[in-house]
Amino acid sequence: MMTGEFAAIERLRARLATPPEGEVWIGDDAAVLLVPGGSVMLLCADAVVLGVHADESFDGLDDLGWKAVAANVSDIAAMGGRPGRSVVTVAGPADTDLDLLYEGIRDAATFFACPVVGGDLTNARDLVVSAAVTGSIASGRPVLRSGARPADEIWVSGRLGAAAFGLRCLREGIATGAPGVAGPTGETSATEVAIAAHRRPRPSVEAGLTARATGATSMIDVSDGLGADLAHIADASGVGVSLEMVPRAEGATLEEAMAGGEDYVLVFTVPPSARIEDAFAAAGLDAPVRIGACTADPRERTLCGRPFAPRGWEHSWG
Amino acid sequence: MMTGEFAAIERLRARLATPPEGEVWIGDDAAVLLVPGGSVMLLCADAVVLGVHADESFDGLDDLGWKAVAANVSDIAAMGGRPGRSVVTVAGPADTDLDLLYEGIRDAATFFACPVVGGDLTNARDLVVSAAVTGSIASGRPVLRSGARPADEIWVSGRLGAAAFGLRCLREGIATGAPGVAGPTGETSATEVAIAAHRRPRPSVEAGLTARATGATSMIDVSDGLGADLAHIADASGVGVSLEMVPRAEGATLEEAMAGGEDYVLVFTVPPSARIEDAFAAAGLDAPVRIGACTADPRERTLCGRPFAPRGWEHSWG
Repeated sequence: MMTGEFAAIERLRARLATPPEGEVWIGDDAAVLLVPGGSVMLLCADAVVLGVHADESFDGLDDLGWKAVAANVSDIAAMGGRPGRSVVTVAGPADTDLDLLYEGIRDAATFFACPVVGGDLTNARDLVVSAAVTGSIASGRPVLRSGARPADEIWVSGRLGAAAFGLRCLREGIATGAPGVAGPTGETSATEVAIAAHRRPRPSVEAGLTARATGATSMIDVSDGLGADLAHIADASGVGVSLEMVPRAEGATLEEAMAGGEDYVLVFTVPPSARIEDAFAAAGLDAPVRIGACTADPRERTLCGRPFAPRGWEHSWG
Repeated sequence: MMTGEFAAIERLRARLATPPEGEVWIGDDAAVLLVPGGSVMLLCADAVVLGVHADESFDGLDDLGWKAVAANVSDIAAMGGRPGRSVVTVAGPADTDLDLLYEGIRDAATFFACPVVGGDLTNARDLVVSAAVTGSIASGRPVLRSGARPADEIWVSGRLGAAAFGLRCLREGIATGAPGVAGPTGETSATEVAIAAHRRPRPSVEAGLTARATGATSMIDVSDGLGADLAHIADASGVGVSLEMVPRAEGATLEEAMAGGEDYVLVFTVPPSARIEDAFAAAGLDAPVRIGACTADPRERTLCGRPFAPRGWEHSWG
């Protein structure tokens, strides 16, 4: 029987040990670990595969390397943490352009300030890049998926679907230009922005720090798709989800905004009293968008009163 | 031009950032990172691939899972550290027996007390299991590869070549029994011991702690082969290596003992005044073996006065 990734994770989680008081293990964006002295550290790991997370016909190996680091940075951001250090393992064919791959790894490690401190190289048929990233919380507790309460507002840190639209542009050959290149008018087109969002996604570290400091009760990064990721929050918190709107990136369809994933936008919940817009403005961030509210019915998953499917991208497991 | 793994690592290391005072990044068994409060943590990552690190025709997926964790535990042991927590990513075909794979991962995480706290599942053609493990140092500093001095003695924590002999037994069909099964006399045969050493290698955590506490000046785990790994110490420390003998596991050839790798025996250097045998006996460990000494000629790599090739297992990179 073929099952999905989330069911497989749940099954495996039951086989593994349970955490001591004060730690959070499998089931959130990153693990929360106790450090001698009483502070906490975050730790997460994600793997990307050429042909799955990047397509060699229109993405570079440097983009794959960027994504391996960025996927983890986004998990740290979703806890309200700041990334610290990275380790990266590469399994791949002997003719892999390691210099190009590591250029993207280094670019992301530099951009997100989580330098690569170790790793491993081994041969395999597919190119698989796996990274683990540590993170820190300046003070207080990280934001889990499980803290949302009925009547909490649901916010996103930005518009959704850009990465999915960018991938569609590349697949359909709408554009093949380099990401972020300015057009003849000096403007960067929506297509170019979307392609850059696909190739070099930007995790929302500052938005996560700001949301945590402003009282976020739960948070997750939109990596599988807004519907799927909000369902993770709702499941972990035991609340329902009533969405009023979904802010789409320019050019993206509603489907791409709801299920596209890999945008690394953050979705979080706050009590109605929280001054989220003021806090984001004070931090110099793009305005966040209130998209709905949590409800008391844990089965509710609605957009404008109509049920939405909580499915996004899942890998298959037999 | 095809180059080896070590040359590729050196090339990539030059592209990456350099550590701040007090931290050690790429180039040792594990990275040494500063933690708020002044203590250090260790962090390492290794990947294993089905068909490279385990052969499905005579190894189980549980053995591959064990190895992914054990390879990292051995890196922590080689710093004189104690393993803490693990994260594991699995990239593989949809029909992978995840339950069997995770049984081995869990067995190793339990045995070495480094529970799995997170990870990721993704699809790929090859089965690639990548783990990152944290470690701690009770007090003082970890043991690096770079601290050996001329006249330091060279010791190993046990006999070498068992894993390579076990793999040969399986390949040649000398034995196909389950690992560690007692024979008719109630004894475990050398073949069975060797097969167990190949399938379920046991990193030398207690030996590493004891060597560090007894004044080890440098240390590495024998994962690529004694010759290659001692060469890493000699290169990093700027010393020569003069070996007098190599203690072979029962059944292993000298070639298997020198170049076999994956034994997870530790090789370390100490000043001649260190009471290594007493310390190992007091800790209830098998007797360590003194195999030679460091010399002042940084080019020397000799066994019984004759040069040995410092090569062990390396993956290929174009």
